[in-house]
Amino acid sequence: MSEIYPTKKPYRARRTPDRAHYDHATIHGILDQGLVAHMGYVGGAGEPQVIPIFYARRGEELLFHASSKSGLGLAAKKGVEMCATVTLIDSIVYARSGFHHSMKFRSVAAHGPTEIVTGEEKLAALDFMIDRLEPGRSAHLRPMSSQEIKATYVVRLMLNQVTAKVSVGDAPNEEPEDLTWPVWAGIVPIDTVFGVPRQHEPSLSDAGRPGLTGPLFAK
Amino acid sequence: MSEIYPTKKPYRARRTPDRAHYDHATIHGILDQGLVAHMGYVGGAGEPQVIPIFYARRGEELLFHASSKSGLGLAAKKGVEMCATVTLIDSIVYARSGFHHSMKFRSVAAHGPTEIVTGEEKLAALDFMIDRLEPGRSAHLRPMSSQEIKATYVVRLMLNQVTAKVSVGDAPNEEPEDLTWPVWAGIVPIDTVFGVPRQHEPSLSDAGRPGLTGPLFAK
Repeated sequence: MSEIYPTKKPYRARRTPDRAHYDHATIHGILDQGLVAHMGYVGGAGEPQVIPIFYARRGEELLFHASSKSGLGLAAKKGVEMCATVTLIDSIVYARSGFHHSMKFRSVAAHGPTEIVTGEEKLAALDFMIDRLEPGRSAHLRPMSSQEIKATYVVRLMLNQVTAKVSVGDAPNEEPEDLTWPVWAGIVPIDTVFGVPRQHEPSLSDAGRPGLTGPLFAK
Repeated sequence: MSEIYPTKKPYRARRTPDRAHYDHATIHGILDQGLVAHMGYVGGAGEPQVIPIFYARRGEELLFHASSKSGLGLAAKKGVEMCATVTLIDSIVYARSGFHHSMKFRSVAAHGPTEIVTGEEKLAALDFMIDRLEPGRSAHLRPMSSQEIKATYVVRLMLNQVTAKVSVGDAPNEEPEDLTWPVWAGIVPIDTVFGVPRQHEPSLSDAGRPGLTGPLFAK
């Protein structure tokens, strides 16, 4: 049995408890397949902001980067609370009633304060993020300059107040009496497909050619 | 020349002004291709919340729905400010330095107060959202019951403070002196692919079988 996150209000699912999951296995699985998190935070004028960003899960850390001059970076520097939402859409559900139109999806919302990662740990986290895109890739790259390192914040959000919402299957969720209504019903599957890597000339070596392996590229 | 949104601070892009766009054509194009918006708002405990939801653009309105009992619905009922972010990821960019790893993407962030749509206008908006999934579909469906209509909020966010960020092309954006570094560099294209519609038995009619037409399904 997978461990359970100790998610409390207002971070738990408010509705449809059968779709809510708090176990590490479900949540890590979704986070490891996602590519982009939508990071929500309250900006300096009190306004909600939602910024899409690449991320990587390392154990119980959600790691991402931000320019030190960006709104996201400035908010992380203050350590503000953020909500990282990762969404995988599996299909559009066409029901016989408008009400039951829906999607099959798997999503995670992770809430918590943010923390800037510094020093040697920062460099290791940057390598970890690169290696998520291709295992071992970071070892082949031109090393980062001190100016580049300074311009990039690495940010950590600890996984603790986390909720997954999952709706799977092939069938619309409908009223039994709707099943005979004369309209087509079913699902339209949605896939995220990674194409053939397209080399930028000159690329003097095949070292680091992405093999598209790992959970990010799993079907 | 396309009209320009009058986007002001703190809703304008803070950085990389060459990637920021405020014209209606660019912004409408992205919104019409996206399937899900990540809605950010400040919850009752002051916490940031980010909820993925299907939406439809109708002229200068961004329309979405929410259960009247959901956190998103309760926030919309209060008319709170929201940030709707729609993100299309076109490729992962593998550069020769860690710093220039990136993605090609097109995203829109629309900020503004939310408003509940009621009465006849609500029913028309629900039909509009259904018809985004298949033109003309709403006419074939079992009509919504008054209970279903009551349980569903339709929410409007007017497009006014809107920013698009766009990074396109096939090449990493690198330092000229990096081009000879001996590592593979290029992009991995990402596509969202809609599969063959999968019928749910019994479907007594082909009326409303999705033809996957319209901007949502455009390549």
